[in-house]
Amino acid sequence: MREDMVSMVHRIQDQICKAIGETDRTEYREDVWTREEGGGGRSRVYSSGEVFDKAGVNVSVVHGTLSEEAAERMGGGNPNDGLEFFATGISLVLHPKNPMAPTVHSNYRYFERGTGEGNGSWWFGGGADLTPSYLFEEDSTHFHSTYRDICERHKVADYGKFKRWCDEYFQNAHRGEARGVGGIFFDNLRSESKNECFKFVEDCAEGFLDSYMPILLRRVNMPFDEDQKTWQKIRRGRYVEFNLIHDRGTKFGLRTNGRIESILMSLPLEARWEYCHEVPKGSEEEKLLKVLREPRDWA
Amino acid sequence: MREDMVSMVHRIQDQICKAIGETDRTEYREDVWTREEGGGGRSRVYSSGEVFDKAGVNVSVVHGTLSEEAAERMGGGNPNDGLEFFATGISLVLHPKNPMAPTVHSNYRYFERGTGEGNGSWWFGGGADLTPSYLFEEDSTHFHSTYRDICERHKVADYGKFKRWCDEYFQNAHRGEARGVGGIFFDNLRSESKNECFKFVEDCAEGFLDSYMPILLRRVNMPFDEDQKTWQKIRRGRYVEFNLIHDRGTKFGLRTNGRIESILMSLPLEARWEYCHEVPKGSEEEKLLKVLREPRDWA
Repeated sequence: MREDMVSMVHRIQDQICKAIGETDRTEYREDVWTREEGGGGRSRVYSSGEVFDKAGVNVSVVHGTLSEEAAERMGGGNPNDGLEFFATGISLVLHPKNPMAPTVHSNYRYFERGTGEGNGSWWFGGGADLTPSYLFEEDSTHFHSTYRDICERHKVADYGKFKRWCDEYFQNAHRGEARGVGGIFFDNLRSESKNECFKFVEDCAEGFLDSYMPILLRRVNMPFDEDQKTWQKIRRGRYVEFNLIHDRGTKFGLRTNGRIESILMSLPLEARWEYCHEVPKGSEEEKLLKVLREPRDWA
Repeated sequence: MREDMVSMVHRIQDQICKAIGETDRTEYREDVWTREEGGGGRSRVYSSGEVFDKAGVNVSVVHGTLSEEAAERMGGGNPNDGLEFFATGISLVLHPKNPMAPTVHSNYRYFERGTGEGNGSWWFGGGADLTPSYLFEEDSTHFHSTYRDICERHKVADYGKFKRWCDEYFQNAHRGEARGVGGIFFDNLRSESKNECFKFVEDCAEGFLDSYMPILLRRVNMPFDEDQKTWQKIRRGRYVEFNLIHDRGTKFGLRTNGRIESILMSLPLEARWEYCHEVPKGSEEEKLLKVLREPRDWA
């Protein structure tokens, strides 16, 4: 399974980067890095193209020994698994320039504790979620429908559960609002068959371009003004708040001595904090906020 | 002591706001807020002036009952103090527009657990620190000298200790660099005499304008270009990282259901994250980074 997953995340990275590069009409910067304690990764980031302010696609394959504290936080594992771990995954965040085009994040990961063989000693996690600055209902519906259809093809998956989990996870609890319009999120995914779980995760990862590219392509040439760009920066401030205050992936990366630039490539190019910012009544900005405060069903 | 401290922080808020308003040629927005669990505060923020991107000066007086968890994190207190607490303080962060002028932060606070009478049931904390985007050695020296002189007037204070504490506290540990060029930081300050501690804290708070205004005034009209403004935004990204990942005050505020806009007024107007940003060899930007990686003695 380690090999299958490692090979899959690299293949998906190539596939997604090919699509980004063609759309953005630029090349990625690639950094291959190693981690002192074991393993490493391959980060690819676009920063100077036509479409994205910043777009990063990382894969990593890391292993080593957890501290007692990190092991406790991580959970899983059997009593005799010890502190060895193995983790591999793909993680991407795309921040378009045009405020009408939503930011998207997706991540798929596989963990093992000990030998990874016992019940509870291995699991998958992942998902994909959409973060618009302006709400286009058809975009949310398309994104959610794609993942609902994928979930329906796999008996280990449950779209309804994973959709609610996503809404709960991507909460800026300190503001009482979601980061975006959600998608799916799952963690500790196990079943009788490792392969069954892998097939679901692979199907999700392969579905990413279908879930996002049609949305991007219909928004990327829409006109926008400076005020709308400013609103996008304010929303990106909320994105930064979530990632630095709440996100478990970011915390895990910082705790396990991950590569800082790869962990924080998820942050937007620019973010803005206006004191007590308020949106006009009845505006498009208010329409978005309402949805972030009361998550809706989209598919 | 509660009354003395409450009256002092309000007086200092007035004094500092008067100076900011005159320099910035604008008015603050004031929000007086109450906290459901007890107490409240008065926030004043400048957002549209000539000199500052954003400048906020908050005072708060809060009391209530700590959760067991919050009590444990807070520390202090005697076994029979219970979970009641009282806290008051002043906190300010000024972010100038001009990248040659440094950001400054200062905060003074007084805590009581239980009745606040027993040994260990009360303490003061605070300090002031400077965060330049460009290094002017004379500014660092002036800032540190001001607080060294104040410390020398009070036997409860120790400039050398408080200076090192500041360097240690304001660390972006995940990047191996300090947030700025430091200043002083102290916490759990107690002595035989509450009043002795109060007099020191009051002297520091009254010294703020002396420590900062001469620096601001000599930098605020210096010419700068777009690249320098961009570098300032990158440095402000690091400021955001520190405040959201590491700062105990921010975490305390979020945990105790503080007013979000007052807690996060410390964030800059705009911040920027460029993937793998590098500074040219021998540049002014590199000169700053060297000092942030190896704190120096300034006074």
